[in-house]
Amino acid sequence: MLKIQFQSLSTRNIGVLFAKDRTFRLGSTNSTLRNSHTESNQFSKLKNTLLYGCLALGGVVAGFSLYEHKYKLLNVNLSGSQKINNSITELNGDKPIWHTIRRSDLPTYNVEEIQVHCSVDKRVWVTYGIGVYDITEFIAEHPGGENIMLGAGSAIDPFWAIYQQHNNKEILTLLELYRIGNLSPEDKVSTEDMGSPWAHEPRRHPLLNPTSERPFNAEPPMKLLGENFFTPNEFFYVRNHLPVPLIDANKFELEVSIETTESGMKEQSKSLTLADIKRMPKYTVTAAVMCGGNRRSEMTRVKSVKGLSWNAGAVGNATWSGARLRDVLLAMGVVPNENLHVVLEGADLDPTSHPYGASIPLSKAMDERGDVILAYEMNGKVLSRDHGYPLRCIVPGTVGSRNVKWLSRIAVSENESNSHWQQNDYKGFSPSTDWDTVDFSKSPAIQAMPVTSAICSPVDGDALIIKDDGYLTVHGYAWSGGGRRIVRVDLTIDQGKTWHVAELQQEDHPDGRHYGWSLWTVRIPIENTTSSEVEIWAKAVDSAYNVQPENFENIWNLRGVLANAYHRIRVKLI
Amino acid sequence: MLKIQFQSLSTRNIGVLFAKDRTFRLGSTNSTLRNSHTESNQFSKLKNTLLYGCLALGGVVAGFSLYEHKYKLLNVNLSGSQKINNSITELNGDKPIWHTIRRSDLPTYNVEEIQVHCSVDKRVWVTYGIGVYDITEFIAEHPGGENIMLGAGSAIDPFWAIYQQHNNKEILTLLELYRIGNLSPEDKVSTEDMGSPWAHEPRRHPLLNPTSERPFNAEPPMKLLGENFFTPNEFFYVRNHLPVPLIDANKFELEVSIETTESGMKEQSKSLTLADIKRMPKYTVTAAVMCGGNRRSEMTRVKSVKGLSWNAGAVGNATWSGARLRDVLLAMGVVPNENLHVVLEGADLDPTSHPYGASIPLSKAMDERGDVILAYEMNGKVLSRDHGYPLRCIVPGTVGSRNVKWLSRIAVSENESNSHWQQNDYKGFSPSTDWDTVDFSKSPAIQAMPVTSAICSPVDGDALIIKDDGYLTVHGYAWSGGGRRIVRVDLTIDQGKTWHVAELQQEDHPDGRHYGWSLWTVRIPIENTTSSEVEIWAKAVDSAYNVQPENFENIWNLRGVLANAYHRIRVKLI
Repeated sequence: MLKIQFQSLSTRNIGVLFAKDRTFRLGSTNSTLRNSHTESNQFSKLKNTLLYGCLALGGVVAGFSLYEHKYKLLNVNLSGSQKINNSITELNGDKPIWHTIRRSDLPTYNVEEIQVHCSVDKRVWVTYGIGVYDITEFIAEHPGGENIMLGAGSAIDPFWAIYQQHNNKEILTLLELYRIGNLSPEDKVSTEDMGSPWAHEPRRHPLLNPTSERPFNAEPPMKLLGENFFTPNEFFYVRNHLPVPLIDANKFELEVSIETTESGMKEQSKSLTLADIKRMPKYTVTAAVMCGGNRRSEMTRVKSVKGLSWNAGAVGNATWSGARLRDVLLAMGVVPNENLHVVLEGADLDPTSHPYGASIPLSKAMDERGDVILAYEMNGKVLSRDHGYPLRCIVPGTVGSRNVKWLSRIAVSENESNSHWQQNDYKGFSPSTDWDTVDFSKSPAIQAMPVTSAICSPVDGDALIIKDDGYLTVHGYAWSGGGRRIVRVDLTIDQGKTWHVAELQQEDHPDGRHYGWSLWTVRIPIENTTSSEVEIWAKAVDSAYNVQPENFENIWNLRGVLANAYHRIRVKLI
Repeated sequence: MLKIQFQSLSTRNIGVLFAKDRTFRLGSTNSTLRNSHTESNQFSKLKNTLLYGCLALGGVVAGFSLYEHKYKLLNVNLSGSQKINNSITELNGDKPIWHTIRRSDLPTYNVEEIQVHCSVDKRVWVTYGIGVYDITEFIAEHPGGENIMLGAGSAIDPFWAIYQQHNNKEILTLLELYRIGNLSPEDKVSTEDMGSPWAHEPRRHPLLNPTSERPFNAEPPMKLLGENFFTPNEFFYVRNHLPVPLIDANKFELEVSIETTESGMKEQSKSLTLADIKRMPKYTVTAAVMCGGNRRSEMTRVKSVKGLSWNAGAVGNATWSGARLRDVLLAMGVVPNENLHVVLEGADLDPTSHPYGASIPLSKAMDERGDVILAYEMNGKVLSRDHGYPLRCIVPGTVGSRNVKWLSRIAVSENESNSHWQQNDYKGFSPSTDWDTVDFSKSPAIQAMPVTSAICSPVDGDALIIKDDGYLTVHGYAWSGGGRRIVRVDLTIDQGKTWHVAELQQEDHPDGRHYGWSLWTVRIPIENTTSSEVEIWAKAVDSAYNVQPENFENIWNLRGVLANAYHRIRVKLI
């Protein structure tokens, strides 16, 4: 009898796989794969085909979830030929190590035999460790979309060395379900031989709290964050999607292309050195940069989501200096056009040498008040490697992921970036959209961010000694995207019966567009508070009088982005 | 014994005035009036001075409210010399008629004696009907601010003929408290002699539901509103602040001035005829125009507010054609400047010949994507008189009150319009700000509007015959200010447990800025609904991913503007 059971510690959606006295047949051969006009639809349709195709087969129906997504009703038909001999006890710490173990019940394949299985027609095989896997049926379910095909017919070890979110119990367990063989010993992939892409990571300040080490993502403690209008560079949150590239600024070149003939423009391409860019008029803008997933950890309390568990510190405010993107584009004859995009690519590469990418509307890039710059300085200092040295695109008022670091290529294009991060990430959805129903092509990529605020001091759980004056002093930040000013921050300690208007201590321009954040402070009378614990709520209002939503329940989304509900903390009064 | 008791039918805040066996001394002579640097602060400080000054006096403290505002703690000291002989039974219908009755206990004054009392120093007297009133102590409490001084030393009858909200029981009762005398018979003001400013009002479509007749304000029925992407001109909501002016288009002149030398501009002024404006390049924009008080009636359910009780129909969507304001200003040498404003004045005048006025930031007027136009056509037809004939400023994405009708003057200025509507109206405040603590100078005038939506069909209270298909079809509109597109509308009939994403049926541009509204429709499955009544909630999300707040409680404000919480209706299923 075989019994595999796993439960997630961190999510509610991880179900239970329960299969007894059967072996696994990995993949149904009678499911058909349909083509679709759009790439993004292809996989959602394929998924439906698979799901309903599989349901038609006999066998055990095992419902389980993965990646915090409702990955249900995968049909696993157990046959004698593909028995898993390993048990859940074969672990390295908490992680299964099946992929490191040769299975005597399965055949052995060499690289040549494996590499022909690189398309859905020929079945898609991959290797990991010494395991060989037929993942054809899983393609449609891959939360990372079609990226899974990058490993088709070869080893996925180099990808998983980068995308380390795969290295967990649930995914390794799932992978083993697709096992069909062993890699011949002479073909074993050694990730050590590949040279670690993480060998050149910069040193970070020890006060930054990592939400992930590889790629490096970290935020400063809230109290520190709230202390400075301009966030010190060394405490500024870091959001890396890939290893930090090593760039020689003397050899650096930025490629700028026009890839359209719209509005009479001429297709062309040119390269700019850092010196070229520094010779252009230098602009300095104050802009907060905020991760689309800032405050995700609060949204996760409603229901788990996919993504790094950020507190409210995935934001910082700085001055950024450099050339205006508008000036670069005007010099090449670019004219405003509402339908075009500027594609931005970084020098940070995934294992297939595809760069990090994003795009913004051309209208933002060309807007005199858009203040998009090619920044080489942050708070008056040379950009650090973690923040994009030698060149970063700063897109004020726009989600952090479009502020592309290690900028290496700019293209005026009729299409948005086709990168994973533009197409299948950083988008908002209805609370009822799940991983079975999501269609990323239906939702616009996040650009300008909504209004938000957070309390920096005190922090949740603090025990406060109440002084004689009978006031509780609270301070924090507030910000809205699109250049909208913060016009008011309200706080309450009685669930909204009484609101106290905060004083806006510091903001950037007194008039016009406001890309920087605002710091605020408020003194709340607590002399009439009989409770020894109070819950403090903060909500901000921007110059379009948009206000934060009250709760996370009704803005919850499967990617855990746009988490801008009221900030609520509890403190003890002593 | 004198007993005056009044209760509001429409508000919670109207308190009870209860005074027995006393007479009223109107005004304390030892209260001092302080000057302040800002006009708008002056009255709030004066009010505090009065309130605390009055509290120091002996006498009966009567707490009551007025105009749905917390008008409390006015100290009324009763003395034998100013006894009100009239009782609450002296009514014309529901209205007191004391101001039409000569009081034998009070002296008689003629116009010459009254007109010297035209400043706080000399006490402020006014007449209404044949009553003479010393309103010095009330000035600070006047919800309409310093406008009250327009009548100082003279009759207020002509003002109240325009601002008809004064003609109600509470205000007439309050006024009588300030009575000090009778107007001599030969000086009686006849409002009939003045000629009615309402004599030239246009005819309106009978389907428009008035929220007030004078000035005329009306909205279409919701079902009709939701039926057309372009709202038919005759059903387009009307928001007039004053009588509709009679304008001869052949003699019409628009005055355009530059009143600043900022950025090297030259002070100048010129006049444009309608023909001049029509000779300029003609632009057509699609733009929804929405009153700042749209949906106020829903906010009022939390707590009463001051203002017209709009349903969700104080909005319409149209094409507007005319010259670009940007072109007019560029031709006069205006250059972009973040700190300047464009003051807009209408030809609609108050009794002192002051026009309706508003202003917008110069940056909006100069923005190529701002699409501000001087419109002479609405949906391809000549503007109707109710919508601003012959010329209206259309400021897309901006609250209706800045879309000045009967446009007669434009000025580039260092200051915002000093009109009541720009300075002391159409601003948002914290829910805890009341009429005692409000400081209008602290809050920015509403410009771009926040995201909102409303269900047009069914309407609240409808009884729906459920068809066999088991779906409830709901449709409505959604809109956000600032050119932000509507990206999603979610509906729920189970208090947010399940959200249904509406189909966006129609919007304006496929890309770029979106000043028009979006119409949406959704089919909600109700086969599992056991209840015979369902509550439907709608919430929209705009392209900055701002979302409507859930409830009105935490966005309530004393003016009842920006009422953009979820739209909720209840319907019966039969």
